[in-house]
Amino acid sequence: MSAQCEKVNSTSPAYEFGPKLKLLRSNDQVRELQTILRDKNTSRTDFKFYADRLIRLVIEESLNQLPFDTCMVMTPTGNYYKGTKYQRGNCGVSIVRSGEAMEQGLRDCCRSIRIGKILVESDSDTHEARVVYAKFPHDIADRKVLLMYPIMSTGNTVIKAVNVLKEHRVAEDNIILSNLFTTPIAAQTITTAFPLMTILTSELYHIAPNHFGQKYFGTD
Amino acid sequence: MSAQCEKVNSTSPAYEFGPKLKLLRSNDQVRELQTILRDKNTSRTDFKFYADRLIRLVIEESLNQLPFDTCMVMTPTGNYYKGTKYQRGNCGVSIVRSGEAMEQGLRDCCRSIRIGKILVESDSDTHEARVVYAKFPHDIADRKVLLMYPIMSTGNTVIKAVNVLKEHRVAEDNIILSNLFTTPIAAQTITTAFPLMTILTSELYHIAPNHFGQKYFGTD
Amino acid sequence: MSAQCEKVNSTSPAYEFGPKLKLLRSNDQVRELQTILRDKNTSRTDFKFYADRLIRLVIEESLNQLPFDTCMVMTPTGNYYKGTKYQRGNCGVSIVRSGEAMEQGLRDCCRSIRIGKILVESDSDTHEARVVYAKFPHDIADRKVLLMYPIMSTGNTVIKAVNVLKEHRVAEDNIILSNLFTTPIAAQTITTAFPLMTILTSELYHIAPNHFGQKYFGTD
Amino acid sequence: MSAQCEKVNSTSPAYEFGPKLKLLRSNDQVRELQTILRDKNTSRTDFKFYADRLIRLVIEESLNQLPFDTCMVMTPTGNYYKGTKYQRGNCGVSIVRSGEAMEQGLRDCCRSIRIGKILVESDSDTHEARVVYAKFPHDIADRKVLLMYPIMSTGNTVIKAVNVLKEHRVAEDNIILSNLFTTPIAAQTITTAFPLMTILTSELYHIAPNHFGQKYFGTD
Repeated sequence: MSAQCEKVNSTSPAYEFGPKLKLLRSNDQVRELQTILRDKNTSRTDFKFYADRLIRLVIEESLNQLPFDTCMVMTPTGNYYKGTKYQRGNCGVSIVRSGEAMEQGLRDCCRSIRIGKILVESDSDTHEARVVYAKFPHDIADRKVLLMYPIMSTGNTVIKAVNVLKEHRVAEDNIILSNLFTTPIAAQTITTAFPLMTILTSELYHIAPNHFGQKYFGTD
Repeated sequence: MSAQCEKVNSTSPAYEFGPKLKLLRSNDQVRELQTILRDKNTSRTDFKFYADRLIRLVIEESLNQLPFDTCMVMTPTGNYYKGTKYQRGNCGVSIVRSGEAMEQGLRDCCRSIRIGKILVESDSDTHEARVVYAKFPHDIADRKVLLMYPIMSTGNTVIKAVNVLKEHRVAEDNIILSNLFTTPIAAQTITTAFPLMTILTSELYHIAPNHFGQKYFGTD
Repeated sequence: MSAQCEKVNSTSPAYEFGPKLKLLRSNDQVRELQTILRDKNTSRTDFKFYADRLIRLVIEESLNQLPFDTCMVMTPTGNYYKGTKYQRGNCGVSIVRSGEAMEQGLRDCCRSIRIGKILVESDSDTHEARVVYAKFPHDIADRKVLLMYPIMSTGNTVIKAVNVLKEHRVAEDNIILSNLFTTPIAAQTITTAFPLMTILTSELYHIAPNHFGQKYFGTD
Repeated sequence: MSAQCEKVNSTSPAYEFGPKLKLLRSNDQVRELQTILRDKNTSRTDFKFYADRLIRLVIEESLNQLPFDTCMVMTPTGNYYKGTKYQRGNCGVSIVRSGEAMEQGLRDCCRSIRIGKILVESDSDTHEARVVYAKFPHDIADRKVLLMYPIMSTGNTVIKAVNVLKEHRVAEDNIILSNLFTTPIAAQTITTAFPLMTILTSELYHIAPNHFGQKYFGTD
């Protein structure tokens, strides 16, 4: 067993990136989903099915980073029950194209949440990322933003996207980046650039499955 | 705030029922779902939507109780990746009627899993539970069984259902009971009757939301 | 090409069963779905996927048998638009077990529709069908009922189920039977027994795919 | 009742745009969906739910425009059944943003179909539409293309998108435009520009519900 398949341990290493980087609690189930998504022999149908499962788990955990209030409700039998409810004012923003794979998962959890979109492209000459399209709820500055982008190798695309959000006056600590797979270098880049932003990922590993978007959507 | 809304703490109390009773890790998100399902003012549409979310989380955690093997896969870039995969040979069994609400959640996680069914009814004279219908995969004795039943007040229905499974030669320790809400008394009854069966629930609380099936399906 | 694969023509033969038997308009698409469901080499995953598609089409057409009113709505630009809306007071009833395969399709079209259930079993000695379980909305007598049962060979099970509905004071002409495949003999039996009930099917053919429920649910 | 709510009749008027413009067969059900989508008082949750239903019906009918072959399959009981199957080699392309609302509907019908994407934007100075992003399956020139765009007022965006497809050597008669609502002027523009392309829509009416994308996604 060579070094190339040694996984970053899920408890300790996130720590070095500070408290805002959070790892989905790993278990056999999550590792199986990660394995299927890594395996080059996985069919497209299976890939999409299992990607959607991992996405839902990451979205559920991301939503758990949002602020909640306590509340008291009455049950059908007339008893009080002390509960919890979301603070209102959230929205989703996907980074085209792979981020769009996470939109359905978000809708599966928050039926009528507003979902905006950012398209960042790399200039073929200068290799610099630039924003070519952005569409948000008009009151995005007043909302918590779940920013969706499943795969991070360098973090450059996310940097651009977060800057667009900040130009729209979204506070950095109102952003939760929802991610499936990140390299340590991308984690380093992003936590350094935006120390107040929360990041939720399912795996820190030095190779990111960059075929994700292509395999999920079937386009090159 | 009266005693009636004091929740059983989610860390300690499960312990008294032994190691086979497992509680879904609680967080704000899970508590919000539980709150919505308890609230008598929740609309049927919302009830179903949020029930489905809690069900998926419980199913995901139940599946995590199943045995896994390690495996090695090759990634599209030609690297090896050390992963995890299910051992084959599982099936689901729902207890009619409320258990059927969990079938779709199971399918959302295991696309083509076989799902059997048990119908237990209470005799209106003797109040005794009896099995009136059972349909299983023919080789159920060789499978792990995810038994689905969301609400337990007394545990009587589950007792009957597990006995039917055992009559079909399913080993007790091959059964994982997937449950949303249980009373402590039902937990006591079931862990005593079937000490080898695994039980996964999201909440131990002395009042169970018995309106669950009726509200989910809209029938009385 | 032998007689056994000659299909009943979709325009004329339904006519002989009277005006209440309606055939889903056939086209290449529908015939492909029927072909996949007939083919013994179809995998269970595919079977379920394509069954769900045919079910949705049949459900959509069944809903179209329900009474509508005209209405006038205002558009966001302030114009009036003359439209159509359902009369309220519908519900679904599935006949266990294969009818349950149609519940999700109904929910995909009518999000919060109430769904009841009837379980009919054949006595192993006398071969007579009898009702062992029935659960309905309490006010079912005042509702239109979409009765779901995908495969009919003899019609006996449906006869029993409709009789249960009538015992609950549902008017015969308030029942719409939603079906995928029926034999001519079952169509004859049912239209004779219940001349006022509407029947919607996708195919009249002398062999019914009786493996439907078993393949859909994966149980024997 | 003023002229502004008079609907174009669904049988005749499509005829004037030639044989390649096809209207979804209208019925009470379809008219109800159209009514809900027009109504300014429809909630976002309902809007999305009913839009998804109309989208599925339009997608099903669009798929029916694709070429089929006959085939012979064997049933589980050993009989031959003469059936129908798709010719392979299709893909979907959505026009961002509103076209993306139709992607899920396409996936609900064709599980693993490849889906490309085109982003057309209007220059704020010149008001001219231009393509800022396009991503396709690499072999799109060999495929039938289901082009998804729900609302057409002028047809300008679709003109640009089809030109991009033609630049990628997709034959005009290999394109099926899948649309929910079109104005007669847009229908005229498009059938004139691309007489060989098939167009499938659910309604020809002089006012298009231009709030569609904004209401579906909740962004301005």
